[in-house]
Amino acid sequence: MKLGLNLSFAIKRWLGGERLAALVANELETRYVQFTWDLVDPDWPASTRDTLAREYATAFAAAGVTVESTFGGLASYTFNHILAPTPELRALGKAHLRNAIDMTAAMEVPAAGMPLGSFSADDAVNPARREEIYKMALEAYVDLARHAREQGLSMLLVEPVPLATEFPASAEEALRLMTDLDGQTDVPVRLCVDWGHAMFKPLFGEKATMEHWMEVVGNYIATFHIQQHDGLYDRHWNFTRDGLITPQILSDFWDRHELDEQTYFLEIIYPFEEPDAVVLEDMKAAMKMLRSV
Amino acid sequence: MKLGLNLSFAIKRWLGGERLAALVANELETRYVQFTWDLVDPDWPASTRDTLAREYATAFAAAGVTVESTFGGLASYTFNHILAPTPELRALGKAHLRNAIDMTAAMEVPAAGMPLGSFSADDAVNPARREEIYKMALEAYVDLARHAREQGLSMLLVEPVPLATEFPASAEEALRLMTDLDGQTDVPVRLCVDWGHAMFKPLFGEKATMEHWMEVVGNYIATFHIQQHDGLYDRHWNFTRDGLITPQILSDFWDRHELDEQTYFLEIIYPFEEPDAVVLEDMKAAMKMLRSV
Repeated sequence: MKLGLNLSFAIKRWLGGERLAALVANELETRYVQFTWDLVDPDWPASTRDTLAREYATAFAAAGVTVESTFGGLASYTFNHILAPTPELRALGKAHLRNAIDMTAAMEVPAAGMPLGSFSADDAVNPARREEIYKMALEAYVDLARHAREQGLSMLLVEPVPLATEFPASAEEALRLMTDLDGQTDVPVRLCVDWGHAMFKPLFGEKATMEHWMEVVGNYIATFHIQQHDGLYDRHWNFTRDGLITPQILSDFWDRHELDEQTYFLEIIYPFEEPDAVVLEDMKAAMKMLRSV
Repeated sequence: MKLGLNLSFAIKRWLGGERLAALVANELETRYVQFTWDLVDPDWPASTRDTLAREYATAFAAAGVTVESTFGGLASYTFNHILAPTPELRALGKAHLRNAIDMTAAMEVPAAGMPLGSFSADDAVNPARREEIYKMALEAYVDLARHAREQGLSMLLVEPVPLATEFPASAEEALRLMTDLDGQTDVPVRLCVDWGHAMFKPLFGEKATMEHWMEVVGNYIATFHIQQHDGLYDRHWNFTRDGLITPQILSDFWDRHELDEQTYFLEIIYPFEEPDAVVLEDMKAAMKMLRSV
């Protein structure tokens, strides 16, 4: 299986391209990464942002590490973006992804992604409002995909999330989004499916299996997030902890579905108060476990 | 005891001033709030940001709810700010708090605050680098306090955090910061002490008590965050869960120290995937428990 790292584990800890690229290449021995916007905020002033982002990109390239995509992290996920209840908030959400596309282009990375957005509590339980806002989100993605192509990107990614108040949550919702956008956008919009989100039992019940996701939207899955979890919350634990997934399950899935180009990006979110030394040792141990299967 | 709400529980869920003010005033029956920057990002374009922030401020005032301060939340805490390893990142951190001061002024709220910032993993274990960056942070706060006064604010708040890689963490470090800034700034810089941070045993051991904090820096504590926790991680659980704190302990502490003006801001951070109805019921139950002592 093709193993990569989402860089969320490193935020606030190992900063700057040279330092982080050395850690990734030499200590964690990975050649594929997904760059998190928690390291460089797409909404920072463009000139400073692009200088900082390019410094990471250059250092990763020099270390022989490919940055396959850039992706929204914790700070980005704090806001509702293009599914927000007001035009002002939705416009800010659209500007946020547009900024991220520009930063990704500055890094010469081919793809950028994030969850689509969040409805407010009131809109989430109002089918007419959901539909109205969803339609505007489709239009926004057509515009954003045009901008992505102009900037030299070749794909946008959307991550389904395990919340009934967001969209897409289920495999069926993800299929609807893919079908609605397929052929309508200047670059393809594809899915980044997180194993912990897809297997979220409180929301999906018996359909909380990766086999179900492969059946329904397998053709649209461009990449994966992997994380350990208990099926009850979106834990983002590492595989050094027991839970519903094992490295063997990941490996068997990879072989059974004859995966090839997709990457398993390990996306671990540590408590901020976890000591740096604990995080690094835990990441090393997990990567060793994952490489052993 | 004077009970208030940090609005972190509401992010992505109950948006807009009218909706949130009604929920706070009528369903949670509180008259004091601390506005989180996760509802309106200080780094959004100023004109839109101030329009959105003023809408919250106006609605809270109309509902008879006082916004005592504005405060950094999850998105803000994702970055290193003025303790970051490079001049570019520190400048972005300084601009972030400056933007927050401007937004706070637009809301006609008298105080703004956040944790001071985070060292990188490498700087955190290098005493000379820590000292060098800390000295620059003091200068930044002198500048920011001048800007705060010019904008009509009367106080800046700093929140100690339970991480050896940040500053201040311990009561002793908080005292150093308070002493270094006392009398040097155009508006006072004071502490917002979080009970869950102050009682963090893995870092503070026997000194992980609120009594210790009151002895060392009691005179500088302008306000408190309250949360339930187990002393092992910074949980931000609600008081509907068992842990090291009870409403009675909070009440006894208030009486014993003859507190008066400080507010206990309940700061609960729910998993994003917790359903809205669960969050609202849990918040109501906790506020009822806290009001009953």
